[in-house]
Amino acid sequence: MKLVQDLSEMTALAASWRGQGLKIALVPTMGWFHAGHLALMRQVRQSADRVVVSLFVNPIQFGPGEDLAAYPRDLQRDMDLAAGEDIDVLYAPSAPDMYPAGFQTTIRVAELGLGLCGASRPGHFDGVCTVVMKLFHQTQPHLAVFGEKDFQQLAVIRRMVRDLDLSIDIVAHPIVRETNGLAMSSRNSYLQEDEKERALCLYRAIIFAQEKVKNAIQPLSAAELCAELEEHIHQIPGFVVDYVEIVDADSLKRCETVTVNSRLILAVKVNERVRLIDNARLYEL
Amino acid sequence: MKLVQDLSEMTALAASWRGQGLKIALVPTMGWFHAGHLALMRQVRQSADRVVVSLFVNPIQFGPGEDLAAYPRDLQRDMDLAAGEDIDVLYAPSAPDMYPAGFQTTIRVAELGLGLCGASRPGHFDGVCTVVMKLFHQTQPHLAVFGEKDFQQLAVIRRMVRDLDLSIDIVAHPIVRETNGLAMSSRNSYLQEDEKERALCLYRAIIFAQEKVKNAIQPLSAAELCAELEEHIHQIPGFVVDYVEIVDADSLKRCETVTVNSRLILAVKVNERVRLIDNARLYEL
Repeated sequence: MKLVQDLSEMTALAASWRGQGLKIALVPTMGWFHAGHLALMRQVRQSADRVVVSLFVNPIQFGPGEDLAAYPRDLQRDMDLAAGEDIDVLYAPSAPDMYPAGFQTTIRVAELGLGLCGASRPGHFDGVCTVVMKLFHQTQPHLAVFGEKDFQQLAVIRRMVRDLDLSIDIVAHPIVRETNGLAMSSRNSYLQEDEKERALCLYRAIIFAQEKVKNAIQPLSAAELCAELEEHIHQIPGFVVDYVEIVDADSLKRCETVTVNSRLILAVKVNERVRLIDNARLYEL
Repeated sequence: MKLVQDLSEMTALAASWRGQGLKIALVPTMGWFHAGHLALMRQVRQSADRVVVSLFVNPIQFGPGEDLAAYPRDLQRDMDLAAGEDIDVLYAPSAPDMYPAGFQTTIRVAELGLGLCGASRPGHFDGVCTVVMKLFHQTQPHLAVFGEKDFQQLAVIRRMVRDLDLSIDIVAHPIVRETNGLAMSSRNSYLQEDEKERALCLYRAIIFAQEKVKNAIQPLSAAELCAELEEHIHQIPGFVVDYVEIVDADSLKRCETVTVNSRLILAVKVNERVRLIDNARLYEL
């Protein structure tokens, strides 16, 4: 595994791989690796000749008052973890290289990026799209993998790739969970032990909803089910629901009733400090 | 010369050229070719193995009430003209292929795209950036050529390419003029003969300004010179100045005084119907 921190070195490397006809996979990350990141790395290894893992805490996807400064960073720790995987390059560009003076270009996916997390975090997905397009151009991947944990992000990226005619296969990786069900997230490191315990309410809401759907005789009202889940979460001390929605997995538009293509998607704020998200299909495949 | 109208055929062709290590040049146009377009084609021919000329009247760069419907179109005429040049592909995709249902992605270059033509035509450069990025991804060029006639467009595209890390060399082609000095434009076809005669006021303003700069003993005030030029144009019946500005050629910010990097850039509206633009350096190279 080679550490590359220089943008033009990365671009040159990718171009030389392309010239040799090698297949490139990109795993975009913000670092502070957990088992979810490592699973993404392993997934694309099978389909590519060269695997690039990018590590960049992207300032333009954080809003004012968000956790940009606090976001956990430890390059050595991440290098050690990535070295255990069979990747070719850990690419960690600097913010001044990514956004030099005069930078002023933004990519927006209008509809998919506006609701849900986009409503709570204005401009967030513009920042995500813009950095991902930059990383795509820098690393020239044939495929890129994104975790389903950030389900809206995945939908937004897929749409951008399609709308702007990128020849990149976007691969989704299922959410990786702790043994107790908590979705893995770098932001879990912000949680106290008792908060981590209570954070299981997200996973419990998912299981509750899936059970309810499984046992339903007729199609369930999405709004009623969401209200019930909100009520559950509402009872957890310090937990405030940002949103609980059942949406079409492709359009992210609200469902009237729960269908096979419905996705439960939720965001809660813990003690006004930590924002957690989770999501799941409601029908079993 | 091969006519390609299918988006995926173009993408596949470009990918196969890339696979063979061939160098690709793109000449993006909206068709209704004049000598300016043909000069662009000839310019890149020397530097590329394959030359693609795209022909697409891009709906999303026209605002409400602009001339999208009236814009001159004649594929056969353009094919005949392009056939006289040594190009490989005339690529004329359809609007439904370019913007299928659900399309929702936009690229914006914030500062450079806001003033001048961007002020008169809100959203215009968003539409330009978006379609150009699509064409770049579809045709995978190593270089692309743009006419200096659309000087702001050139600056915006250069910025986008730099900001989003595209490995594409953006080449500028000087304005091609009629023998009397009128800058060639597909929109000149909207002009009556007497309007065409009066439209020379743009070129005359340029020559006047260049002469004035040449003969000046001390740096000229940009604002005073612009006011003088506006006054000249103001006297032409039916001509209304949209803007007359002297800007820095890179930042497009207004100059205090005329310097070697200043660009005179102007837009006028003829009989509330036709919008003409022109521009030039003020110091000789």
